[in-house]
Amino acid sequence: MANTRFAYVRHFEQASEYFLPRDTWLVIRVDGRGFSRFTQAHNYVKPNDVRGIQLMNRAAMHVAREFNECCAAYGQSDEYSFVLHKSTQLYSRRLSKIASSVSSAFSSAFVFHWAEYFPTTPLQYPPAFDSRVVSYPTVQHVRDYFSWRQADCHINNLYNTCFWALVQQGGMTPPEAEARLDGTFSNDKNELLYSQFGINYNTLSAVFRKGTFLAKEEPGAFPADAFLPGGCTDLLPWP
Amino acid sequence: MANTRFAYVRHFEQASEYFLPRDTWLVIRVDGRGFSRFTQAHNYVKPNDVRGIQLMNRAAMHVAREFNECCAAYGQSDEYSFVLHKSTQLYSRRLSKIASSVSSAFSSAFVFHWAEYFPTTPLQYPPAFDSRVVSYPTVQHVRDYFSWRQADCHINNLYNTCFWALVQQGGMTPPEAEARLDGTFSNDKNELLYSQFGINYNTLSAVFRKGTFLAKEEPGAFPADAFLPGGCTDLLPWP
Amino acid sequence: MANTRFAYVRHFEQASEYFLPRDTWLVIRVDGRGFSRFTQAHNYVKPNDVRGIQLMNRAAMHVAREFNECCAAYGQSDEYSFVLHKSTQLYSRRLSKIASSVSSAFSSAFVFHWAEYFPTTPLQYPPAFDSRVVSYPTVQHVRDYFSWRQADCHINNLYNTCFWALVQQGGMTPPEAEARLDGTFSNDKNELLYSQFGINYNTLSAVFRKGTFLAKEEPGAFPADAFLPGGCTDLLPWP
Amino acid sequence: MANTRFAYVRHFEQASEYFLPRDTWLVIRVDGRGFSRFTQAHNYVKPNDVRGIQLMNRAAMHVAREFNECCAAYGQSDEYSFVLHKSTQLYSRRLSKIASSVSSAFSSAFVFHWAEYFPTTPLQYPPAFDSRVVSYPTVQHVRDYFSWRQADCHINNLYNTCFWALVQQGGMTPPEAEARLDGTFSNDKNELLYSQFGINYNTLSAVFRKGTFLAKEEPGAFPADAFLPGGCTDLLPWP
Repeated sequence: MANTRFAYVRHFEQASEYFLPRDTWLVIRVDGRGFSRFTQAHNYVKPNDVRGIQLMNRAAMHVAREFNECCAAYGQSDEYSFVLHKSTQLYSRRLSKIASSVSSAFSSAFVFHWAEYFPTTPLQYPPAFDSRVVSYPTVQHVRDYFSWRQADCHINNLYNTCFWALVQQGGMTPPEAEARLDGTFSNDKNELLYSQFGINYNTLSAVFRKGTFLAKEEPGAFPADAFLPGGCTDLLPWP
Repeated sequence: MANTRFAYVRHFEQASEYFLPRDTWLVIRVDGRGFSRFTQAHNYVKPNDVRGIQLMNRAAMHVAREFNECCAAYGQSDEYSFVLHKSTQLYSRRLSKIASSVSSAFSSAFVFHWAEYFPTTPLQYPPAFDSRVVSYPTVQHVRDYFSWRQADCHINNLYNTCFWALVQQGGMTPPEAEARLDGTFSNDKNELLYSQFGINYNTLSAVFRKGTFLAKEEPGAFPADAFLPGGCTDLLPWP
Repeated sequence: MANTRFAYVRHFEQASEYFLPRDTWLVIRVDGRGFSRFTQAHNYVKPNDVRGIQLMNRAAMHVAREFNECCAAYGQSDEYSFVLHKSTQLYSRRLSKIASSVSSAFSSAFVFHWAEYFPTTPLQYPPAFDSRVVSYPTVQHVRDYFSWRQADCHINNLYNTCFWALVQQGGMTPPEAEARLDGTFSNDKNELLYSQFGINYNTLSAVFRKGTFLAKEEPGAFPADAFLPGGCTDLLPWP
Repeated sequence: MANTRFAYVRHFEQASEYFLPRDTWLVIRVDGRGFSRFTQAHNYVKPNDVRGIQLMNRAAMHVAREFNECCAAYGQSDEYSFVLHKSTQLYSRRLSKIASSVSSAFSSAFVFHWAEYFPTTPLQYPPAFDSRVVSYPTVQHVRDYFSWRQADCHINNLYNTCFWALVQQGGMTPPEAEARLDGTFSNDKNELLYSQFGINYNTLSAVFRKGTFLAKEEPGAFPADAFLPGGCTDLLPWP
C-alpha cells in the first residue's frame, strides 16, 4: 500500500467495516437484479424454465465449492441462499467482503456456464445479483429461514402456475389473469388449476413447487439435513 | 413475501442492514480475488497485459452505465474504484446491497466480455471480485482517495517493471529478482531500469504507470475532473 | 486484561463496535427517560419551570467542559444536543463509548447540581437520560439540525402554553384542554392565548419559546455562531 | 416532531442507528471514566474500599431494577456488567439507546446514593461511566464472559494487594513497589504477601478477590446461576 500524504483516506474505511457477530450462522441470499426483464429478454419458459433452474444450481454449486465454509444452500426463483458455518472466519467476518464476493462468484459462474444450459440463446447482456448477509444464532433459526424461503417459493409458484395457465391456455391477457386471481386463496388456486386446466398442482415437479436444496456430502461435513425444512424433498449433493 | 410462522426470521435482517451516511460521496473499490493465480492460469503478459487492462476498463464501463449515480471511476492492477454521487439513494444506501451489486455487475461483465479481449485464451474458470464501500464527506477526500490509489499504482508498477526485467531479460529467478530489489528506493529502481536494461521508466505507457480514469461526459453530469488527481493524464470517457 | 481461556469472549466485542465516520460533525442528543413522570413527581411548574431549565443548562455546561471537543450545545424541554468538532478523535469515534459517556456525564451532573436549583424539593429517585449520536458532513447540516430542534421547541411550547392556560386559568380538565386544541393551527393558538387569557405569546421569555444555546467563548474555539439558527437569541457562554 | 424544511436532518440518524442481533444475550459493561483520579480525590481506602464497592453494588441494583430485562449483573473494581435476557426488545435493541441509558442510570444512582456510603466525604464533582454492549449467542458465552471478568478481578486484586502492602506497610515509594513486582507471577505474589506481610491472600474477603454477582430472585426469573462462573461465591440477591 502506498504510504503517501494521501494515505490518510484509508482511515475512513473503518467506519463502514462491519463485522458479523462471531459464532453465529451466516446466511447470504443472492437475488437477481431486474430479472423479469432478463428472463423476458432471454425467452425463459414460463412459469418455470428448467434450464434457468439448472443454471442457477450450477452457479450455486460453484459458490458452494469456492467457499469452504458453506455447508448448505437453497435456491428458488431468481434467488439462492448460502449458509456459512458458524465457525467461519472468512474475511474476518467482514460484511461487505462476504456479501460482495459471494454475489460476484455467483454472477461470474452464471455467465460462465450460460451457454451450457442455453446453447441456442446467446446471452445479451451481463446479469447482476445483489446480496445481503444475515446472522442467526442457532441451527433452528437457519432451519426456519429455509422453511420461510420455501413457503415463499410455494406461494409464488402456485400463483405463477395459475397466472400462466390463464394466459397461455386460457387466452387471457396478463391484466385479465391478474384480476381473475385477485383475492383468491390457495385452495381456490388449486381448484382453478384442476377444474379449468386439469392440472393437479401437487403432481407438478417438486423442484418447481419447493425449490432446490444443496447438501454437502463430504466426510466430516456439517450434516446439511440439520437445516432441511420438513417438506423439502429435492436435494442436490455437491461436489 | 410468504407470511408464515417462519417469517419471524426476517426480523434478524435488521441487525446487519447498515446504511451509509447521507450526503456523502460513496467510493466502491472492487478487487480481484486470487488474481495472481488467475493471471498465471491465463498467461497474462508481465508486468502489464494490455488486453487485461482493456477488459477491466470494459467491465468498469458497464458498471458505470448500469449505475446512473456513478460519476467517475479509476482502475489499476486488479482493482477498480467507482464514485457514486453524494445524492445517491441507490438501495437506500444499504451497504451490502451496494457492495454486492457493484461487484456482481463488474464480475458478470468481465466474464461476458472476456472473449473480445482474449479471443485465443479460453476462460478456464469464473473469476471473482470482492468489494468494499467507503463514505467520504467532501470532493477533496475523494480526490485524495484517487491520488492514494494512483500512488499505489506507481509504486507497484515500478517494482513490477524492475522485477520482470530482471527475470525476463536479466535471467534471474523470481527469488533472485526479489532479493535484488529488496531495500531499493524509487531512484534506485529507475537507475536499475535505465543502466541495466536501457528502459526510461517515464516514457513507458502512462496507462501502466498511472492507471485509467473514467470520466462521464454527459450534459449535466458532475464534472469528473473535480476528482482528477493532478498527475493523471489517462482519461477514458464514457459512454 | 486477564489472559485466560475465557478471554476469547473479548473478540465478540468487535461486532458491536461501530466507528462514526471521520471528518464529520458529531451531534449527541441526550433525552430524558420518562420525564413526564419525573417532572410530576418533583412538582415542576407548568408549562415551563425556570429552575428545571437552569439545571439542564448547568448539566450541559458540565458536559461541554468535560469534553473538550464540544463546540456548541442546544437545549429545550428535556433534551440537550452537543456538537463535537469534526476533528474529534474522542474514544476513536466509537459510537457506544461516546453516546454512553455523554449521557452519563449529563445525568451525573444533573443529580449533583439538583439541590442548587431545587433547594426545597428533595430528589426522589435517580433520573436517566438516553442518547443517540448522529454524524453530519457539513456545518450547514448542523445549523439545520439546530433549526429543526428549535422549531420543535416552538411548536411544543406553543401547545403547552395553551394547554396549561386552559387547565390552570380556564378551569378545564386535561382531556378537555386536549380536545379544545385538537386540530388548531399556530395562529389559532396565538389567538386563543391573546383573546381568552390576554397572553401575547411573542412576549413570553425567549428561553421558553426558543430554548438555550451554549457557545464556547475561548480564544481559538470554533465560532459557535456558525451553527446558530437564525431566530435563536438566547445564548449562554461557557465556561 | 417539528415538520419543517429542516426536518430532513432526521434522515441522517439512520446511518448510526445500529440494532443488536435478535435472540442473543446482551451484556452491557459500564466502566468508570478517569477513576484513579476520582478515587484519589475522594480518599478511597487502598487497595479496596468497602464503601466504594457497596456504592457500586447499590447503583447496579438500581439499574437491575430499572431494566426489567436484566437477569444478572457482576461488578469488580470500577466496572459493572449487566446481562439483558436474549428476548429483550428494549429500545428495539438499538445500540446507542441501550448503552447510554444504562450508563446514565448507573451514574445517576451512583451520585444519588453517594452520601449514604460516604457520609463524611462530600462528592467533589460528578463522576462519569462509559459503556459498551456486546451480543452473545448462548448462555455458555455469557458464563465465560463472567469468568473472564472474574479472572481480571483476581489478577488485578492480587497485584494491588501486593502493591499497597509494599507501599503502606513496606514503606516503598510507588515506583519502587512497581519495580519490585515487575515480572513476578501469581505464586511469587502470594509468597511475598505471606512471607513479608503475613497475609494469606486466600483468606481475604471474597468480595475483594472475586467481585460481586447480583442474581435476580423472583418467581419466574431466568436462573442467574446459569451464568455463575464456578469460583464465584459472593452472590447478592435483588431486590
